[in-house]
Amino acid sequence: VIDAKYTKVTSELVETLKGIAGSEGVSADEEEREKYSCDEMSIPKPHLAEVIVKPRDTATVARVLSLANEKRIPVTPRGSGTGLSGGCVPIFGGILLSLERMNQILEIDEENFVATVEPGVILADLYEAVEGCGLYYPLYPGESSASIGGNVATNAGGMRAVKYGVTRQLVLGLEAVLPTGEIISMGGKFVKSSTGYDLMQLLIGSEGTLGMITKIMLKLTTPPKRREVLFIPFNSLYDAIKAVPDILKHKILPVGIEFMERDIISIVEGYINRQIPFHDYEAFLMIILEGETEEEVYEAADGIREICMNNGAVDTFVPSSEAAKRKLLDAREKFYHALKHLGPMDIADVVVPRSQIPEFIKRVKEISRRHQMPIIAYGHAGDGNVHVHPLGKDMDRDEWERRLPRVFADIYQAGASLGGVISGEHGLGFEKKGYLTATMDEKLIILMKRIKRAFDPNNILNPGKIFDLE
Amino acid sequence: VIDAKYTKVTSELVETLKGIAGSEGVSADEEEREKYSCDEMSIPKPHLAEVIVKPRDTATVARVLSLANEKRIPVTPRGSGTGLSGGCVPIFGGILLSLERMNQILEIDEENFVATVEPGVILADLYEAVEGCGLYYPLYPGESSASIGGNVATNAGGMRAVKYGVTRQLVLGLEAVLPTGEIISMGGKFVKSSTGYDLMQLLIGSEGTLGMITKIMLKLTTPPKRREVLFIPFNSLYDAIKAVPDILKHKILPVGIEFMERDIISIVEGYINRQIPFHDYEAFLMIILEGETEEEVYEAADGIREICMNNGAVDTFVPSSEAAKRKLLDAREKFYHALKHLGPMDIADVVVPRSQIPEFIKRVKEISRRHQMPIIAYGHAGDGNVHVHPLGKDMDRDEWERRLPRVFADIYQAGASLGGVISGEHGLGFEKKGYLTATMDEKLIILMKRIKRAFDPNNILNPGKIFDLE
Repeated sequence: VIDAKYTKVTSELVETLKGIAGSEGVSADEEEREKYSCDEMSIPKPHLAEVIVKPRDTATVARVLSLANEKRIPVTPRGSGTGLSGGCVPIFGGILLSLERMNQILEIDEENFVATVEPGVILADLYEAVEGCGLYYPLYPGESSASIGGNVATNAGGMRAVKYGVTRQLVLGLEAVLPTGEIISMGGKFVKSSTGYDLMQLLIGSEGTLGMITKIMLKLTTPPKRREVLFIPFNSLYDAIKAVPDILKHKILPVGIEFMERDIISIVEGYINRQIPFHDYEAFLMIILEGETEEEVYEAADGIREICMNNGAVDTFVPSSEAAKRKLLDAREKFYHALKHLGPMDIADVVVPRSQIPEFIKRVKEISRRHQMPIIAYGHAGDGNVHVHPLGKDMDRDEWERRLPRVFADIYQAGASLGGVISGEHGLGFEKKGYLTATMDEKLIILMKRIKRAFDPNNILNPGKIFDLE
Repeated sequence: VIDAKYTKVTSELVETLKGIAGSEGVSADEEEREKYSCDEMSIPKPHLAEVIVKPRDTATVARVLSLANEKRIPVTPRGSGTGLSGGCVPIFGGILLSLERMNQILEIDEENFVATVEPGVILADLYEAVEGCGLYYPLYPGESSASIGGNVATNAGGMRAVKYGVTRQLVLGLEAVLPTGEIISMGGKFVKSSTGYDLMQLLIGSEGTLGMITKIMLKLTTPPKRREVLFIPFNSLYDAIKAVPDILKHKILPVGIEFMERDIISIVEGYINRQIPFHDYEAFLMIILEGETEEEVYEAADGIREICMNNGAVDTFVPSSEAAKRKLLDAREKFYHALKHLGPMDIADVVVPRSQIPEFIKRVKEISRRHQMPIIAYGHAGDGNVHVHPLGKDMDRDEWERRLPRVFADIYQAGASLGGVISGEHGLGFEKKGYLTATMDEKLIILMKRIKRAFDPNNILNPGKIFDLE
C-alpha cells in the first residue's frame, strides 16, 4: 500500500536515522515492525512501517521530521497504541515514530496547579505522581495505560466529563514539532488568552496530523474527598434518560452519569462471572458523585434517588462498602473487554444531544434488525456520548465484515440526523474517516484540508488519517 | 487610510446593499458612520466606514459577504462596540456590518442545558432569560451590555473564570458565514467531539477575522444558591498572591479571586465617594464564593480566612448584608470607570502564570518609574490575568501618547518573559497587534496568517486586525 508519491525507506536512511536517534532508538526488524502494525482494535490486516524510531527528546523528533519532510517519507506518530480507530497505524509504511521513551513527568507545579509532561507518560503514572502532591488530574477515559500524547491527539473524554470536561479543557500548553521539523510552543500556565488564533486548540484532537506533540501542560485540580456510586434500575431507557436533566439540576453536579441496558449487563455478568444487583430490569443509570464530606455526598445521593424514583426508577442500589463500590465501577469498565471476549466486534462512538439518546438507541435497534446484526449500545448519559458495538458472534467473519460498512453508515447517519457527530472521543483515524464525508458539511472538510496543507505542505505527517488529502 | 487594493463603496453599491438588507438596514449617513467609528477605548482618531449595514438574518450576512468578496470591499463586524482593542473599528473603511439587530434568544433548551442565541444578544438579556428558566450562564466579563458575538470573537473571560472557565469553554456550537459568503455550522448540543479539526475553537477568539458568527449555542449550568464575598487586606501583594494556591486547595473552589493594591482603592473611593473597609493596607484579595447552602459557604469562608491569616493577612472583611456585599462588588466593577474618569488612560491585559503576579507587578512598577508615567495594575489573581493601566493625568496629551508605545512594549515584554501572553480577554484588535511580533514566536504568526488565507483568500473580513497579512 505504499503510495507512489512517497519515498521508500532505504537501508542508508535507516543508518542516517540511527545517527540521529541512536542505534537503540531505531529498528527495522520484522518483529518490531509487526508490534507497531495496529492499535487496540483488531483490523483485517496489519500495516507495517518500514522503520521504527523511538526518540528520547524534542530535538530528535525535529530532526527526524525535518529529514522525512525533505525526503518525502510518511511519518506516523504513536503513543501507547490504545486507540480504537487506527490513528497510530502506519498505513503508508514509512517511519513509525513512537513517543514511548519520552515518558518523563517534567514538573508538577503546586503553586500554579500545572503538570508538565512528555507525551509518552501514561495516565496511571500521571495519576500517581499528581496524587502524591495532593492534587488531581480528573480525566478518566478508563484505559490507564493510554498515553497523555494520545489523549491530546484524540481529545480523550471518558466518564468524568460531565463535571470536569474533556482533554481539550484540561490542556494549558503544548510544545509540538511541525511536519517541517520546526518546534513551536503554545499556551502556558494560564487559562485565559485572547492573543491570536488558538493553534493549541487546533492541534488538540487533530490526531497527530498537524504536529507531533512533544510536551504537554495539564491543568490540575484538588482531589475529591468522597466518592459515591448509585446504580438505578428503570423499566425503560426512555425513563432513565428523562431523569438526567433533573439530576443535573440537583445540588451536586455528578462527575459522570452512565447508561446501560439489560443486554450489556448480561454479557458482563457472564464475563466477570458474578451477578449485578437488579440485573432483571430494562435500563440502568450509574451515577458517580464526588464531594467534600460524607454528609454532603449522602444528601446529594438521597436527592438523586428521589428524582429517579419520580422519573420511573424501580429502586436504587448504593453499594455500602468501598469494595462493593469498586466492584460496580469495575463491571462498567469491563464492558469493552466483555464484548471483545464474545467474538469479533467493532465500535462506533457517536455523540448526540443528551435528550436524543433514547431516539438514537431506538434507531440503532432498528438498524440492528434491518441488517440482522446484534448491536450493543451503552455510554455516557450525562454528555450524549454513546458507544455502539456491532457484534460478529455466531456469524461468518467475512460476511460480517462485508456488512459492517453499511451498518456503520446507518448508525452515523442516525447520529448526525439527530444533531450529533460521528466520534465523541475515539477519533476517526483511518477506519472511520470514510464516514466523515457522509455526515459532515463538505465546506468544513475543505477548510480542514486547507489547514492541513498550511501545516504540512508535503503531507508527510500521519497521512490518510481523518480524511484523504487528494 | 483606505487601502488601494480594496474597492471604494459607490452609491450604486449602497443601493445594491439596500436591495439585500432593506433600506432601513443600510446607511451611509455621516452621523451614523461616526457612531460606528470607534469602540469603548478613546482613540486618537475615529475610522469611518463607508456604509453601515445591519442585517437581520444569516442569509443577509451571507449575501453581503459574498458581494464584498466579489467586489473586494473590506467588511468589519461589530457587536455592541464594548471592546477595548479596536477589533470592531473599520480601519480600512468599507462596510461596517453591525449585528445589533440579530438579537434574538432563539431557544433555551432545558433538557440539554443549552441556550441558542443570535450574536447581537447582550449579556444582560441572556442572564435574565436563562435565570427565568432556573438555569445559569456563568460568564461574567463585568460589562453586561457586551454582545455574545463579541464575547465569542474575543474569547471573553472575566471574574468567574476560576470556577467556570472562559467563553471558549462555554460555547458548544457556532454558525458562521465565511468571508466568501458560505454558511457553516460547527459543534452542537454536546461537549465531546473528536471528529476532525475543531474549527469552532479556531473561530472563538479570532476577532471576526475568519468568519462572521451568526448563531451561538452556549452551555448552561445550575445557579448557585448562596454567594459570599471576602475582602482581605495584606501588608504586601507578595503575601496576598502567596495565599492563592492554598485558597484554591480549600473545600470550595472560589468563583473568582481578585487582587488590587492601595492605589486603585484610593482612586475608586474618590470616584464612588465612599470609603472601602481597611483601605489603608497595601494589597487586597477579593474572593467570591458560591455554594449550595449558607453553612457550606460560611464554613468555606472561615477556612479561607484562616488560610489568609496564616499567609500574612491583616484582617478579613465579610460584608454581612446583601447590600454591603453588592457595594463591595460594585466598587470592584467601577475600577475601569474610575480610572477613565481621571483622564486619559489606556489598558494592557496581560496574562502571566498565577505565581508570577508579584514579580510582574514589580516589573510594571519599574517600568512606571523608568518612563515617568503612573501605571495602575489590578486583576484576576485566580487566573493570572492582570489589567495594567498607564495613566495620562497631569501630563501633556501628545507627550503621553508619544511615550505610550514604549511603555506598552516594556509591559508586554515583561509579561512574555514570565511565561505569559499579551492579552487574556480583550484581544489585539488593531491597537495591540503591533506588540504581537515582539512577544510571540514568528513561526506561530506565520501559521496564523496561512490559516487566515485559507479562510479569507481576498483578506476582506476584518483586515488589519490581530496582524497585518502582508
